[in-house]
Amino acid sequence: MRKELKISSAVIRRLPKYYRYLGLIMKTGTVRVSSQELSEITGFTASQIRQDLNHFGGFGQQGYGYNVKELRAELKEIIGLNLKYKVCIIGVGNIGKAIFNYYNTSDSSLDIVACFDADLEKSSSEVGKITKDIGELDDFLKHNEIDIAVLATPVSVAQEIANKVVDNGVKAIWNFAPIDLKLPDKIVLEDVHLDESLSTLIYYLGNIKDYKGNRQ
Amino acid sequence: MRKELKISSAVIRRLPKYYRYLGLIMKTGTVRVSSQELSEITGFTASQIRQDLNHFGGFGQQGYGYNVKELRAELKEIIGLNLKYKVCIIGVGNIGKAIFNYYNTSDSSLDIVACFDADLEKSSSEVGKITKDIGELDDFLKHNEIDIAVLATPVSVAQEIANKVVDNGVKAIWNFAPIDLKLPDKIVLEDVHLDESLSTLIYYLGNIKDYKGNRQ
Repeated sequence: MRKELKISSAVIRRLPKYYRYLGLIMKTGTVRVSSQELSEITGFTASQIRQDLNHFGGFGQQGYGYNVKELRAELKEIIGLNLKYKVCIIGVGNIGKAIFNYYNTSDSSLDIVACFDADLEKSSSEVGKITKDIGELDDFLKHNEIDIAVLATPVSVAQEIANKVVDNGVKAIWNFAPIDLKLPDKIVLEDVHLDESLSTLIYYLGNIKDYKGNRQ
Repeated sequence: MRKELKISSAVIRRLPKYYRYLGLIMKTGTVRVSSQELSEITGFTASQIRQDLNHFGGFGQQGYGYNVKELRAELKEIIGLNLKYKVCIIGVGNIGKAIFNYYNTSDSSLDIVACFDADLEKSSSEVGKITKDIGELDDFLKHNEIDIAVLATPVSVAQEIANKVVDNGVKAIWNFAPIDLKLPDKIVLEDVHLDESLSTLIYYLGNIKDYKGNRQ
């Protein structure tokens, strides 16, 4: 049923939201949910929800709604959260450590196999156990297939390390360094730019006239 | 010179990027930069850069470019990074701690005056010094003017705490909890949804056909 048309990034970014809301709905014991009910919970319109889901095949029945558990399982698979990804975290400062502690759980989609830092002293106990010297990164990547590199280094070395990671076959970078990395087109890059998010918040705080409200 | 037209969020989100790039350019000792040169560095088109900056007044001279230091100072003021903001961090788990350690510096725009957590044992030494019991939050907010609340609590209590924060006059929430908060329209909300960012990356890793590349 999966169509081969290019799906827009706006649709793709809504999928994890639907997945999250369905998890909440499932916890309440609800078995079926209509797109209208989903609309009330998520704030997206019912027609947008139906359109979004239709990109990935025919879920739900007209006038009968979606089976919550089934739709959630489908979304999990569509996003790819049913699989495990081999991950290394490069840079184990505050951000790197936070990511490690947050995602180093048995039900996470991330299998964090190694961390790297220039300063091994910096690593706290738990992270420290799997933290290697940054000098070993190249050799490690040559001998281990890594799906995702989490980049949480200082900005001064971020591009150089990103190049090394890509040269060794890593296909995706989750970047926390405040830099717009230049990478080959088929390398998936997802940025979390904390400074830009904070700057945007600060701008609106001083210019509430430009703020369009916080609802979807 | 400041116009009173509503400025789009796309423009506003580019400002911190320009500001960051100008900082890098300044470090190289460059005095003047043309929109064409800025385009090559930032990846945005020269006409977009000129248009964006024109929203905020007339910088630069035709054929002569922008004074790097002046433009950066102007942008700093336009964004509001020339001011200090009183901040409390609510939830001092890994994310809260990371934010504290990252922004608790003398040159930061954030003046982190207090942290709150339900579990004081959890707080590490540095954060611990200014961490109070979450039960004291209400009273604290009534007696201290806070500009920005950083919300890094578990999702189960996030909405309730957000309500409390807003009821006590805080005008902006930087939210790291995986929830779409429902807030009054004039409260500035900026989300950092790590799970959604990671899910998007994972989706593209498995569906590179939908990926439009990582260049601006």
